[in-house]
Amino acid sequence: MTTTQARTEADHAHGADPHTAPAAAGHQGGHGPHGYSAQKDAHLKRLRRIEGQIRGLQRMVDEDVYCIDVLTQVSASTKALQSFALSLLEEHLRHCVAAAAEEGGAELDAKVAEATAAISRLLRS
Amino acid sequence: MTTTQARTEADHAHGADPHTAPAAAGHQGGHGPHGYSAQKDAHLKRLRRIEGQIRGLQRMVDEDVYCIDVLTQVSASTKALQSFALSLLEEHLRHCVAAAAEEGGAELDAKVAEATAAISRLLRS
Amino acid sequence: MTTTQARTEADHAHGADPHTAPAAAGHQGGHGPHGYSAQKDAHLKRLRRIEGQIRGLQRMVDEDVYCIDVLTQVSASTKALQSFALSLLEEHLRHCVAAAAEEGGAELDAKVAEATAAISRLLRS
Amino acid sequence: MTTTQARTEADHAHGADPHTAPAAAGHQGGHGPHGYSAQKDAHLKRLRRIEGQIRGLQRMVDEDVYCIDVLTQVSASTKALQSFALSLLEEHLRHCVAAAAEEGGAELDAKVAEATAAISRLLRS
Repeated sequence: MTTTQARTEADHAHGADPHTAPAAAGHQGGHGPHGYSAQKDAHLKRLRRIEGQIRGLQRMVDEDVYCIDVLTQVSASTKALQSFALSLLEEHLRHCVAAAAEEGGAELDAKVAEATAAISRLLRS
Repeated sequence: MTTTQARTEADHAHGADPHTAPAAAGHQGGHGPHGYSAQKDAHLKRLRRIEGQIRGLQRMVDEDVYCIDVLTQVSASTKALQSFALSLLEEHLRHCVAAAAEEGGAELDAKVAEATAAISRLLRS
Repeated sequence: MTTTQARTEADHAHGADPHTAPAAAGHQGGHGPHGYSAQKDAHLKRLRRIEGQIRGLQRMVDEDVYCIDVLTQVSASTKALQSFALSLLEEHLRHCVAAAAEEGGAELDAKVAEATAAISRLLRS
Repeated sequence: MTTTQARTEADHAHGADPHTAPAAAGHQGGHGPHGYSAQKDAHLKRLRRIEGQIRGLQRMVDEDVYCIDVLTQVSASTKALQSFALSLLEEHLRHCVAAAAEEGGAELDAKVAEATAAISRLLRS
């Protein structure tokens, strides 16, 4: 997906009316994009550390480091990516799924099915 | 581990005598560090693509892309890291474990235990 | 855990008052233990199929079936267990987490943290 | 696969001549089916314990045990299956891959590719 086409948190958390939604989000104290943004710095810091690990892997391969030691570093990077995914998912359940629960019915079912599919992809990767 | 301390493929593949080993490796047609180096470019290309994916994740978080779409990209990156690990492991089994098999006994047991521990770390990450 | 000590769905879904809760659940049309029970037969059928797979593995080992073929069957059984976990998790998000969302605050945070920890254990197994 | 059609360890470890192979295996001190058989009891004990865990899961579902507690038990069973897979794989590398290494060339390549594919299936399950 190109990021210009990408749906944003605000589109999803607030549904049809993008003009009134941000204000509502502010009143809800952390639901929707603002809750997400509050954690943005932590997420970006985490991803920059993972980027550093991937560059470390390139150095290791370049310097003919012993295969098993490279694999140990790959496991550490994969674990760091999974941790990042879990923190994203926790936020998503707390904000988006909870917001859908207030609407109930089909909206909740759709959000829960979507979250479950995302967890399934994480499990199979 | 710092890479200056890191063991190299050559240390491992050839055991006690680092002077005669490289020549032997050449004769074996791909065992040891030379087999590893032949694939180096492919490995580095793969890792640079993964580095690009991690930077893509940073852009997605920065632009408040919808959580589930970020998670899909995390799954793709994890899968790419696992594929890289599998290609390293396949090389390792073909060269290092096979070389140990020729020596047999304790040397083979040690290499197999080491490879199994690495696979276990991949499974749990 | 012994199952006699185990918490039940009804304890969790309805909080402090175990006497009024079951009736309430009936009125909610699928939340809490009744939603869970509706799927019980499907769950039990799935688990009996997995039990059959594990007995199949015993036969394979007993008959000295080739190692790689046994591993293929282990992967199938692991995948079946993960699918079962995902269907349980989906139900849990739809009923328990959604119920907690209606109460909001600390209750929601606790349920989301608990679900995330469970997902983390699945990812690491 | 039906187990009557299944390849056995003996077929694989000894190639074309099933009559002379077992004797050779005895001389190799643990390679081939005899090494495998020595661990058979440990494998079967392990699988019976996993079968007990799966029956425990059925009881938990039947008694409406809280979802998250069921998921914890699923994670334990998945981990036990993965451990079983790793012990099978370690034996396989020690015996079959090492035996192929002695023959070298295409035989080794085929065995390594086959083992890597099995590891890949475990990672994706």
